[in-house]
Amino acid sequence: MYTITFRQNGSEIRTQAAGGQTILEAARAAGVDIDAPCSGNGICGKCRVKLVSGALDGGTGRQISEEERLAGIRLACESRVCGDAVIEIPETAGSFRYGIVTADLSGEKDLAVFRAAADALQEQGIARVRSGFSLIALTLDAPTLDDTVPDLDRVQLALSRETDCEAIRFSSVFVRRAAAVLRENDFRVVLPVEKKDDGSLFVYDILPPDSDMIPALAVDIGTTTVTAVLTDLLTGKILSRASAGNAQIRYGADVINRIVAASRPGGRELLEKAITEDTLRPMVEALCREAGISAGRILRVCIASNTTMNHLLTGCFADPIRMEPYIPTFFETNAFSGHDFPLGIHPDAAVLFAPNVGSYVGGDITAGTLVTRMWTKPEFSVFVDLGTNGEIVFGSEDFLMCCACSAGPAFEGGGISCGMRATRGAISELVIDPETMEPTFKTISDAAPLGLCGSGIIDTVSELFRCGIISGKGAFIREGARIRRDESSIARYVIAQGGEDQREICIDEVDIANFIRAKGAIFSAIVTMLRCVDMDMEMIDHIYIAGGIGSGLNIDNAVSVGMLPKLAKECYTYLGNTSLTGAVCMLLSSDAAEKVREIASGLTYLELSTQPGYMDEFVAACFLPHTDASLFPED
Amino acid sequence: MYTITFRQNGSEIRTQAAGGQTILEAARAAGVDIDAPCSGNGICGKCRVKLVSGALDGGTGRQISEEERLAGIRLACESRVCGDAVIEIPETAGSFRYGIVTADLSGEKDLAVFRAAADALQEQGIARVRSGFSLIALTLDAPTLDDTVPDLDRVQLALSRETDCEAIRFSSVFVRRAAAVLRENDFRVVLPVEKKDDGSLFVYDILPPDSDMIPALAVDIGTTTVTAVLTDLLTGKILSRASAGNAQIRYGADVINRIVAASRPGGRELLEKAITEDTLRPMVEALCREAGISAGRILRVCIASNTTMNHLLTGCFADPIRMEPYIPTFFETNAFSGHDFPLGIHPDAAVLFAPNVGSYVGGDITAGTLVTRMWTKPEFSVFVDLGTNGEIVFGSEDFLMCCACSAGPAFEGGGISCGMRATRGAISELVIDPETMEPTFKTISDAAPLGLCGSGIIDTVSELFRCGIISGKGAFIREGARIRRDESSIARYVIAQGGEDQREICIDEVDIANFIRAKGAIFSAIVTMLRCVDMDMEMIDHIYIAGGIGSGLNIDNAVSVGMLPKLAKECYTYLGNTSLTGAVCMLLSSDAAEKVREIASGLTYLELSTQPGYMDEFVAACFLPHTDASLFPED
Repeated sequence: MYTITFRQNGSEIRTQAAGGQTILEAARAAGVDIDAPCSGNGICGKCRVKLVSGALDGGTGRQISEEERLAGIRLACESRVCGDAVIEIPETAGSFRYGIVTADLSGEKDLAVFRAAADALQEQGIARVRSGFSLIALTLDAPTLDDTVPDLDRVQLALSRETDCEAIRFSSVFVRRAAAVLRENDFRVVLPVEKKDDGSLFVYDILPPDSDMIPALAVDIGTTTVTAVLTDLLTGKILSRASAGNAQIRYGADVINRIVAASRPGGRELLEKAITEDTLRPMVEALCREAGISAGRILRVCIASNTTMNHLLTGCFADPIRMEPYIPTFFETNAFSGHDFPLGIHPDAAVLFAPNVGSYVGGDITAGTLVTRMWTKPEFSVFVDLGTNGEIVFGSEDFLMCCACSAGPAFEGGGISCGMRATRGAISELVIDPETMEPTFKTISDAAPLGLCGSGIIDTVSELFRCGIISGKGAFIREGARIRRDESSIARYVIAQGGEDQREICIDEVDIANFIRAKGAIFSAIVTMLRCVDMDMEMIDHIYIAGGIGSGLNIDNAVSVGMLPKLAKECYTYLGNTSLTGAVCMLLSSDAAEKVREIASGLTYLELSTQPGYMDEFVAACFLPHTDASLFPED
Repeated sequence: MYTITFRQNGSEIRTQAAGGQTILEAARAAGVDIDAPCSGNGICGKCRVKLVSGALDGGTGRQISEEERLAGIRLACESRVCGDAVIEIPETAGSFRYGIVTADLSGEKDLAVFRAAADALQEQGIARVRSGFSLIALTLDAPTLDDTVPDLDRVQLALSRETDCEAIRFSSVFVRRAAAVLRENDFRVVLPVEKKDDGSLFVYDILPPDSDMIPALAVDIGTTTVTAVLTDLLTGKILSRASAGNAQIRYGADVINRIVAASRPGGRELLEKAITEDTLRPMVEALCREAGISAGRILRVCIASNTTMNHLLTGCFADPIRMEPYIPTFFETNAFSGHDFPLGIHPDAAVLFAPNVGSYVGGDITAGTLVTRMWTKPEFSVFVDLGTNGEIVFGSEDFLMCCACSAGPAFEGGGISCGMRATRGAISELVIDPETMEPTFKTISDAAPLGLCGSGIIDTVSELFRCGIISGKGAFIREGARIRRDESSIARYVIAQGGEDQREICIDEVDIANFIRAKGAIFSAIVTMLRCVDMDMEMIDHIYIAGGIGSGLNIDNAVSVGMLPKLAKECYTYLGNTSLTGAVCMLLSSDAAEKVREIASGLTYLELSTQPGYMDEFVAACFLPHTDASLFPED
């Protein structure tokens, strides 16, 4: 065994590793995060690390230049332990930030989204808040030598009188806490209860008399990004909001690589730990800190996520999802409660899942489709969810069909040198002066720029193309002060110097190629799906776009790069994170949850990969805006 | 901070302790067991340790002789850390063994007890096995590209066809395991299911096709001793059996000291951990190893225990039990499941509790009363449970009343120099030759003698008294080779040299005094209770005796020491551990569980301490056989 010392963000982690183990394996075993989008298969070249001292075997293949090699740069997945070594994990290229929790309730904007969704659904007869939960205040007689009824029976009698309900069950949390809470509060308490469908009352807990709120948690688990809000089941008020990178990313950037990693010995537990302990638990802690409650008070959870994400979260064996005939364990399940996840939430809290429709279309889409309300309209609409898996729903009140394509994490800032999630400091809007090539940009929260989020990437590529700085293939074709080239002569456009270390924020040709593949995947999926039902673009009445890409989406730019078809501007609506909004609606309203189930059961899944012509469409769409220019006529 | 090194049973544990901390506190913090029956109040003198090197402050009070002091003996509860020290924890006087698990299914004898109880109850119309559980074998079609139903729905459809039940719910354990177990077994599986009262079916798990049995766990949690069996819900077969000392003993020998310890900051968690992680978990592991199953397969648990024990187990705040007006949190609760306890059992396994009747009469007695069947008889019976708390039930088919007295752990071998639980090597029967004073004895499993269990202690005291070796006060009044005295001139009777180290197995005057107090508490409780309802001993038709005291009870000896009243020999029945037997019956049969609830609700509690004359009775009974010799006439 050798001692490997990892340095990352100024901290040092030491671990023992056997000779022959790869640095990526050693890092994973030590809980050190190295971004490995291809899951360590030596393909993506993203897992660059720097050998500071000691020796490593290999890891200097074709992706590493001679200059890099001399500077100690190695691929973590291909270099093997052969002695003690000190390894620095650079915070540069490809290191998409994850694991960082930002509990910022961005006030009006977020609230407006949820409120608008709830308002709109209410028009469809879907209650805004109707969860069966309530808080019941009780004032009890203290026991005496002549009245020695046990605490539990004392509460039960009073509660039964108060509610006219005989069938009362108590959570173990209530039983454990009752004696202390009753006596600390002179037998004046508040009980959070749920009226169950069978008419019985379930008592979750016992709280001091001044307690209000019944906190509940909605989570959107994306392959790359996880977003969550804490809400109050009684009022629907949003209490706090957080987002984080999905820590599973260290096991691969896409769902297939994740499933492969989970299928290795011990892999299932590692993937489960990455999403629960390393991602959700710190998020829940941050959300609760922000809201001033303890996690144990959370009495209900709703999770919207793709099929792979919800299978890996629940510890299901996910291999059958990726192997013919592609069978998930569940589409829908009500088997899980708080005690199944190490998140500190109430053990009896029901954990709902937005239902899956297929192995590659999951609860994020069914919850999102609820929010679009396309199922209420006679016209044809398209709903595009820009995630690592891009999912498309097409239909009307009469039918709904869907498909999925692998877009990669570019829309979430992943796989892009200076990409980041849509949080404080992310460049979310950008314009380039065609003459000077100087950029003007806006960042989220108007903070100093740190990187590019999805909407910023779309704007940048669109502006570079509009100004003739890059070609339709994404190659740089103008020169200037902001265009620089590295030693491999890969060109980049420098937007700013940012961050504490004033490092360069730029976009390079590799990033642009990644983005073009992502937008091509989306566009070709839409086209193929429509062709499948003999429809034309012109027959589409509306396009809803979702995704946590930034504070908004510049539709003109999205069209000009050929990501979305060219329709009249009023046909587009950007809905933000519909998966999260849908999860909030399901959490608060059982009507909404029921409607999502209905949507899921009526959603027909179309497997793109078996559609003739799909690959040709994809290749044709990997161009700015498209190889078939007639699809994007000049105005 | 200083380094304290504890040596116990040949192993060493090192810990850091602050100056001024007592050695008992430091040991507890380090998880080192020191027997402290008085919970560290400097009263019992049992927590003797040996200072091997280094220094300690104090701990050499009146209970430590000068010779002992020079030999390094200190009281752990009174000696304080003042530097590094090495402490040996002797395995001698007072160290009642606990934490040791013995998974010995002692074959016919135990089985006979459970079988006899079940047979007898069956005569009362109580089903032997009727738990609603069954194993359902399914052979499913494997999925294909044309049949892509998810695993969960596939199982649900087949199960619904098989059982004609539509309302099916799945455990999270099932969901997590389904994909792998289905594919490892070519879609031939067995499901353990429970038909719930509302007619719905709950699927706990998914198992390979050759699985039989539905393991379930019955536990008797005594203040001193914990006993458990693993049984099969389908057949009622006993799969394995284990007993252990209750590791809470390090926080006090009786329930009051335990509650006091639990009320200190962090105390509740320590007491909970002692009974779950330190006692029950190793027992469950041993039981499962013996039965060849994993703990996760245990689908139901029934616990019979006194009120304090079940409150400390469930983490309830127990202080109100010992403080006027003496209010427990619960008499009965169905709020707990496997996931509430760190035992590795199935998270959805219901954990039943035999119902409590009062703060000092618990589920051990209600479950035990079921087994006596005194509630089926027109005649008056007395039921005596010989535990650390002695509990007495008196009544007939028309009424039942009960009381409790503090007997101490002597009947379980606790508080006796060479006492031990009734396991392999315990001297369980003993006769003394009145001439030579030589003993003849039998041990459990005919093993080499290790110590004295409850029945052996009763026999020894009775024989010493019969042979005129000790007086009615318990003082030695004959001399001989087997009578020896220590430096404080406390006399002892040496029975054998035993154990690996051939140490002396003896009983001394302190032990005899402890025993006399224990038997006096029982006898005076019986007398006081009868007097309360104006009854005479002569009106008693039957006395049932229970307790894990050994492989049997020599009734003549129990009477001759004045523990039990003098009745015709056929009036006595020794029933073994009725608490455990009752728990097994409740586990297997919902009829039995219902009957125990009925017994509990009809059981009137009599508080002895408020009965005039009880203390006088107790003092009078602390003599062999009794200060009123007329109660025990010579035959």
